[in-house]
Amino acid sequence: MSKITIKTLAKELKLSVSTVSKAMRDSHEISQETKLRVNELAKKLNYVINPYASSLGSKTSKTIGVVIPEVVDSFFALAINGIESVAQENGYHVLIYLTHESREKEQNILMDFESGRVDGVLMSVSRDTQDHLYIDELMQAGLPFVFFDRVFDDVETSQITTNDYESAYLATKHLLEHGCKEIMFLAYSKSLSIASKRLQGYTAALAEQGLVVAQQNVITFDHDFNASYLQLKGRLQEANRSDGVLASVEKLAIPIYQACEELHLSIPGDLQVISFSNLDTAAYLNPPLSTITQPAFEIGKVAATALMTFLKRKDSVQVKEEIVIPSTLVVRKSTKA
Amino acid sequence: MSKITIKTLAKELKLSVSTVSKAMRDSHEISQETKLRVNELAKKLNYVINPYASSLGSKTSKTIGVVIPEVVDSFFALAINGIESVAQENGYHVLIYLTHESREKEQNILMDFESGRVDGVLMSVSRDTQDHLYIDELMQAGLPFVFFDRVFDDVETSQITTNDYESAYLATKHLLEHGCKEIMFLAYSKSLSIASKRLQGYTAALAEQGLVVAQQNVITFDHDFNASYLQLKGRLQEANRSDGVLASVEKLAIPIYQACEELHLSIPGDLQVISFSNLDTAAYLNPPLSTITQPAFEIGKVAATALMTFLKRKDSVQVKEEIVIPSTLVVRKSTKA
Repeated sequence: MSKITIKTLAKELKLSVSTVSKAMRDSHEISQETKLRVNELAKKLNYVINPYASSLGSKTSKTIGVVIPEVVDSFFALAINGIESVAQENGYHVLIYLTHESREKEQNILMDFESGRVDGVLMSVSRDTQDHLYIDELMQAGLPFVFFDRVFDDVETSQITTNDYESAYLATKHLLEHGCKEIMFLAYSKSLSIASKRLQGYTAALAEQGLVVAQQNVITFDHDFNASYLQLKGRLQEANRSDGVLASVEKLAIPIYQACEELHLSIPGDLQVISFSNLDTAAYLNPPLSTITQPAFEIGKVAATALMTFLKRKDSVQVKEEIVIPSTLVVRKSTKA
Repeated sequence: MSKITIKTLAKELKLSVSTVSKAMRDSHEISQETKLRVNELAKKLNYVINPYASSLGSKTSKTIGVVIPEVVDSFFALAINGIESVAQENGYHVLIYLTHESREKEQNILMDFESGRVDGVLMSVSRDTQDHLYIDELMQAGLPFVFFDRVFDDVETSQITTNDYESAYLATKHLLEHGCKEIMFLAYSKSLSIASKRLQGYTAALAEQGLVVAQQNVITFDHDFNASYLQLKGRLQEANRSDGVLASVEKLAIPIYQACEELHLSIPGDLQVISFSNLDTAAYLNPPLSTITQPAFEIGKVAATALMTFLKRKDSVQVKEEIVIPSTLVVRKSTKA
């Protein structure tokens, strides 16, 4: 049997999710008759909305949920610290949930929020997630969301990102200015907001030099990591082999170093490398890695502040707000500076 | 007003924490009279034990809490993945709580568990925590704990660690065998279980060569990181300067590389370096870092399995069980192999 959600109740009763939620919270906006209908069905289906840990939107659990893809990544690890610094000042607990890039896991986590476990959610979307229907429902039911890093552009809420487009544009331009002709772009997804913006920045910098994106220069490391790695190695062995590469996420930087070591290629002599990365070892790699360093801690802090501000307000309508905190291109010896 | 805990109730009523907990869970072991007394006081003091999200020991929230110092650390990031792999198979949610090495934060997190938010706890102790009175109380009240990495030797439960003593012993021996005479030990705490075992291993390897631990060779990076860093740099500039170093936690490896760069010392020429570390960049540092690589994912997995096994059992007494999963010394170019 599939899990009973607030949506199940709404559908069954031909009511909106928001009405069902309000009825369960005994809102004065809802008639006694509707409340009775909702509660009867909830009882029948064994659906429990937790009255102690807080109800959706009633702001009493003093807990926020952070939904992110993973923690084996400096960006997210630092962002968590930024989030916690703000939450703590405001007397909130932080619960961290990992989706491991799976839409299914993400969905299960979000379903758990229906029981009122958290007062609000800070979220960075998983790689496999392509729609936000379920998030819309939770927001309608009174649970506030703030997105950071990996966002849904068309959700009416605060969205905290870095300047993904400009950063990728500047990094690609840097490679072009230092002699690269065949620049690869290593992507981590075809659909994520950050992936498409970074790819657009790369494309724009090439276009400025009258170059078009060659299909073989864009390698997406999505479901079969090894296959993509072999594709990368292959591209480094061809006659017109690649001489520069922009890795759009941190975890793709080390595979480049590994491929060069295996193929006896020198960085930056044979291949110049830049990666989006918050690795604190970047400066001590061989050679030191040029990075686009994201303001990870700051992004976490600003995202948490946006959520806290919302939770303190009396009215409860979230509005679209885009906050962009710029990254820094740090040139080190993996490019010919 | 300080928060009302189950301990407050127990003290006030002159009952054990365990009795109070059982009374609140309506256990058949407790008399009606006692239940009445407990519930009356709980009501009076506004103490709520959450009947929906599960009660302590009643195992219904299908959620486990992971209490760790931080996530900007490969060991903990990988251990979380190990934990989640097991939890998921067993249909459990995982909530991650960070103590940031603070005893106070750790205590607040544990207090939150009194409300029955989790069915069990996987924990790695914070640097500032020196006693486990409060954990004992929670365990008595029926909340199972399993420790990993940073443990309390004298708590009667499963404890999953790596071979800290042997690993430090072997690393120090490796440095001695490759010509080091003045080996530093960089510690992260004076009190943690891992700190003392690793220091003992270092001490034993020196003793085998008739050497004693020199006070100036043990540097503890605890509360003032910069002061400790200056102490490290100072030790590298003295006449009988240090020629080898064992970093007992990952985050102390990069400061060594930084100090050598600032002082124009070569690794391994002037200073040989080994660090406990799960950094996946270790092999690509300049020079590649010799590491004691801990089975982080495996430790997380085994710890979670121990907790799951316990949660599935009918009886509810935890027993002491020590599981040691060995680390591997990976020799790279930061030592003269």
